[in-house]
Amino acid sequence: MLFGALEAGGTKMVLAVLDENQRMISHEQVPTLTPEDTMPRMIGYFKGFSLSALGIGCFGPLDLNPASPAFGSITATPKLAWRNFPLLSEFRKALRIPAAIDTDVNGAALAEARLGAAKDVNSCVYATVGTGVGAGLVIDGKPVHGLVHPEMGHILITPDESDPSPMGFCPYHRHCLEGMAAGPALEKRWGAPGKQLPIDHPAWELESGYLAQFCYDAMLSFSPEKIILGGGVMQQKLLFPKIREKTAALLNGYVAHPCVEEGLANYIVEPGLGTDSGILGAYLLARDALK
Amino acid sequence: MLFGALEAGGTKMVLAVLDENQRMISHEQVPTLTPEDTMPRMIGYFKGFSLSALGIGCFGPLDLNPASPAFGSITATPKLAWRNFPLLSEFRKALRIPAAIDTDVNGAALAEARLGAAKDVNSCVYATVGTGVGAGLVIDGKPVHGLVHPEMGHILITPDESDPSPMGFCPYHRHCLEGMAAGPALEKRWGAPGKQLPIDHPAWELESGYLAQFCYDAMLSFSPEKIILGGGVMQQKLLFPKIREKTAALLNGYVAHPCVEEGLANYIVEPGLGTDSGILGAYLLARDALK
Repeated sequence: MLFGALEAGGTKMVLAVLDENQRMISHEQVPTLTPEDTMPRMIGYFKGFSLSALGIGCFGPLDLNPASPAFGSITATPKLAWRNFPLLSEFRKALRIPAAIDTDVNGAALAEARLGAAKDVNSCVYATVGTGVGAGLVIDGKPVHGLVHPEMGHILITPDESDPSPMGFCPYHRHCLEGMAAGPALEKRWGAPGKQLPIDHPAWELESGYLAQFCYDAMLSFSPEKIILGGGVMQQKLLFPKIREKTAALLNGYVAHPCVEEGLANYIVEPGLGTDSGILGAYLLARDALK
Repeated sequence: MLFGALEAGGTKMVLAVLDENQRMISHEQVPTLTPEDTMPRMIGYFKGFSLSALGIGCFGPLDLNPASPAFGSITATPKLAWRNFPLLSEFRKALRIPAAIDTDVNGAALAEARLGAAKDVNSCVYATVGTGVGAGLVIDGKPVHGLVHPEMGHILITPDESDPSPMGFCPYHRHCLEGMAAGPALEKRWGAPGKQLPIDHPAWELESGYLAQFCYDAMLSFSPEKIILGGGVMQQKLLFPKIREKTAALLNGYVAHPCVEEGLANYIVEPGLGTDSGILGAYLLARDALK
């Protein structure tokens, strides 16, 4: 039995086919241009296999309300060619197989919850810190949607006094997490990309402080059993111990739990699936679509 | 069939007995003194009925991990006489009936979700703004626990430039929600309790701004389908339109949903059960304990 998986990103589409044992049979990349260009190429790829179901993890925001006429569409994205594009229904029409969609980060959170860093617990938040900041939330094995879906990249962060750009760089919000801590914010604030900043650069104290605010707020807001941080910026591994230390300092003994006493080393962690969380999340969505 | 309900607060214990049709048969109040004094009085009251189960909504923090030896205990409370008190197991031992416990605010959120302001949707957050700030979270009909349980009263709030007490008054955290917006914070900041402040006092602009930050962060963090605000401070009804307006301003068009376009009037709401959310939550916990 074969399952199609699509990790739909703003720059590239990652497509894969996996069997029921989670073995990757094939994978492919397609640049994200316009739907007119990109959809036929993706549909053509998936039609080359006898798929039982398709799962899609897609950049947001998405309409995930099953009762909505626009269910499965991309909504208010700045990627104008894709705005209001009915991604799920176009695939269903073309492939005529069960198909499911969720945000890319909810997909990745689902994969980490079932197969990765959070497989031994019942809830987790997965955040990616890269070109943007996004986070997915899984509780009791299910991605959380609610009114729309979590957009934790835009929660408010209190600027540090030492920040030369205390308002951040989000076009929508003053000092939201993405505007303060995404890769482009780092680069705009310091005039160079994170990769080029030395490990003792003040950028990393600020960055870890802002991500600690995120971890703290997540813990207090919905008490995940694991916080998983991935994405390009988190390749700077020195961030992890700094984030743990600053999160513990913010908690200041208020949340009593062994994982806090242990210094959060097993609580604020790297993805267990490396960079595969996204595509494996799409695969799990496909499997669930068949149920 | 009769169910016992206990809303355990730091000042008073509210006890009630309801039948399977949610009719209140009896209710009673007992001051919260020490366990030695208060427990026998509560046990005596409940023993006067032939109860099928007991539900408890209690001030936190609580140990809600069913695998923990301290499951159902109060943990790091500043109410020293009750610290580490095994509330649930003491009631189970004394009454020998099924019993369940959750935080007071998770109980209230459950009642609002099943019977109150959120009964037509699948998720909600219920926050009480009074002596402290607490919030409970229900997703798909179930209160969220996770690592410990939500403690949303302590999420970080960005102080307003006009705030004469920008660090707030929480002994644990600088500028957390409770330290900035609970009743005692209002009183310390302005030298008079909220009740005595005129409706055009700057206190209300600040207060509504801080509660709007809470609503905004909740929407972006886990996307509840309804935000319910109760508690003593929210008796100041002029807060509701201000909070809605400021939340919409913070969103700045980023979350596209009809309820935002409608001005959040049906989204950020008063409790549907008035001041009964807490005791009805305990009743629902009792009913669930029997299942």
